[in-house]
Amino acid sequence: MTRIVVDAMGSDNYPTPDVEGAVMAAREYGVEIVFTGDASKIQPILDSVGGVNPPIRVIHAPEMLTMNDKGDDLVMKARHKEAQNSMAVGLDLVKNGEADAFVTAGNTGAAMVTALFRLGRIRGVDRPALAGPFPTATGICSVLDIGANPDCKPVNLLQFGIMGSVYAEKVRAIQNPKVGLISNGEEAGKGSELVKEAYPLLANAKLNFIGNLEGKEIFSGHADVAVTDGFTGNVFLKSTEAVAKLLVEKIRESIRGGGPLAILGGVLVRPAMGKVRKLLDPSEEGAAPLLGVNGLVFIGHGRSDAVAIKNAVRVAKNAVEAKVLDAMKSAIEESLKK
Amino acid sequence: MTRIVVDAMGSDNYPTPDVEGAVMAAREYGVEIVFTGDASKIQPILDSVGGVNPPIRVIHAPEMLTMNDKGDDLVMKARHKEAQNSMAVGLDLVKNGEADAFVTAGNTGAAMVTALFRLGRIRGVDRPALAGPFPTATGICSVLDIGANPDCKPVNLLQFGIMGSVYAEKVRAIQNPKVGLISNGEEAGKGSELVKEAYPLLANAKLNFIGNLEGKEIFSGHADVAVTDGFTGNVFLKSTEAVAKLLVEKIRESIRGGGPLAILGGVLVRPAMGKVRKLLDPSEEGAAPLLGVNGLVFIGHGRSDAVAIKNAVRVAKNAVEAKVLDAMKSAIEESLKK
Repeated sequence: MTRIVVDAMGSDNYPTPDVEGAVMAAREYGVEIVFTGDASKIQPILDSVGGVNPPIRVIHAPEMLTMNDKGDDLVMKARHKEAQNSMAVGLDLVKNGEADAFVTAGNTGAAMVTALFRLGRIRGVDRPALAGPFPTATGICSVLDIGANPDCKPVNLLQFGIMGSVYAEKVRAIQNPKVGLISNGEEAGKGSELVKEAYPLLANAKLNFIGNLEGKEIFSGHADVAVTDGFTGNVFLKSTEAVAKLLVEKIRESIRGGGPLAILGGVLVRPAMGKVRKLLDPSEEGAAPLLGVNGLVFIGHGRSDAVAIKNAVRVAKNAVEAKVLDAMKSAIEESLKK
Repeated sequence: MTRIVVDAMGSDNYPTPDVEGAVMAAREYGVEIVFTGDASKIQPILDSVGGVNPPIRVIHAPEMLTMNDKGDDLVMKARHKEAQNSMAVGLDLVKNGEADAFVTAGNTGAAMVTALFRLGRIRGVDRPALAGPFPTATGICSVLDIGANPDCKPVNLLQFGIMGSVYAEKVRAIQNPKVGLISNGEEAGKGSELVKEAYPLLANAKLNFIGNLEGKEIFSGHADVAVTDGFTGNVFLKSTEAVAKLLVEKIRESIRGGGPLAILGGVLVRPAMGKVRKLLDPSEEGAAPLLGVNGLVFIGHGRSDAVAIKNAVRVAKNAVEAKVLDAMKSAIEESLKK
């Protein structure tokens, strides 16, 4: 049975959504859950939601990493051998083969740094990348890196493409995933120096490389994987989130201010609007995989609710069962032979 | 009277929106319009819309730059002394003092290159930048550069901040404009190498520098000016456009598929939705100024309709009358003294 570690101290409203969501996943998907975190806080929630078979385990980890952990202080906490925070304890279970994957909705930076120190990197991978699942007109596009590496070299982008492609194929079951490169123009030859140098590397790799991508190609669903440096990817993530939020707010405001008929109309379209909100809601996907570390790690949004945690566990289970880590290792190894 | 050159061959549906919009502006704002382009195509539209006082002038420019003009070929057409395309002819009028500003809805790359060769740069400016006006919850944020320079140095970002601030103050009448730096985190110290080096330059300049910005700060209206390199800015522009378009499409689709009550609701909220669309419509702002060239140049979207052209002429008029070019020259000069 697949064993997933869930950081009980991850989400903004920890540990309730984290624990409830993981219990839902244990029941729905038949995975074994191991919680790391403050046992005195986890147990009451477990008691209230009732039993699961096989029983859920709790590994007490009295400390936690928060948004305040950064810089050298974070590195110390992340790498300290005897670290007692819920991330380090959970990741060590994966490292030692006592669990198959780690899920957290905690501080993204802390999770990335801790994963890097506890698990190390896949052989040959220079930089791990966080792959964000973006909803498009037709499905999902994985954008990577969305924030692990603000400065990248061309070879990093090549490896992001390889890892993203393997992940899409194995975990999303997409045959021959279409991989594109985010640029400031669709035509080959457009781009920053980084993009111009990465382009031929991606084009010559064993990838279904479809060339440069602009926003419209990404959101219309042209690509399964979109490669970019972590600075651009992070700006992409945060700016698209922000503009979608502004748009929805402005629509609400405009309906409310539009008189009784508009308000009635607003009530009537509410279910339809709800469907759209759900479609564009990252919690449907649950979490972003951190690709390139030597273990399976999924990092969810701090705002994750129980459903998001449940979905993150589902995605982690799929990744374990698809043996995506081994497949990534082989693909990276092969890319280094040339 | 302020004299604005309008490229009649600019928009996707040239010359009708270009000519009609500029005539509307002439009537509404009392500006003098000079069209450049194919006189045989411009004159019939002018005849159909009736006269304006003072009469509108047409300078015949038999050639035009299109989306196919790029690379060396474009450079040749942009710099050729005897160039007969509507952009080069129009920009020369500004250069020679026969007009005060140039407006085009043509190929952005062609307009930037042609402007650079015909007008040159402001003394001390290393790279001109295209400043895109983005609608926010509270007004407008100018994001620059949105595409002129895919690779930037820290000093370029400093100069973008200075030029953007002067523009916001003079043309938008914002006192002490708030200038931020787009980054992958709000805290100082977050960012790519470029951002980390640009930060102290902006902080030590005579600017109301508010630090790093993420998407949520930009769209909630925290900043009047957001500085970034042209690669990131262009990705920002195109991805936010694309996600807004996807969202509106999905809402429509969901309402249409939501049964008779949802469809009725959709009809009732249509005026409210229309208001939101208008709010987020870049044509309200008309065009993006190209800051740093030695003359006033405004580049509109290819999709510009007559209203967008009219608004672009209005903004150009405001810029001329606010003497923003002189103010930018002084501010850049002063920044070089230190």
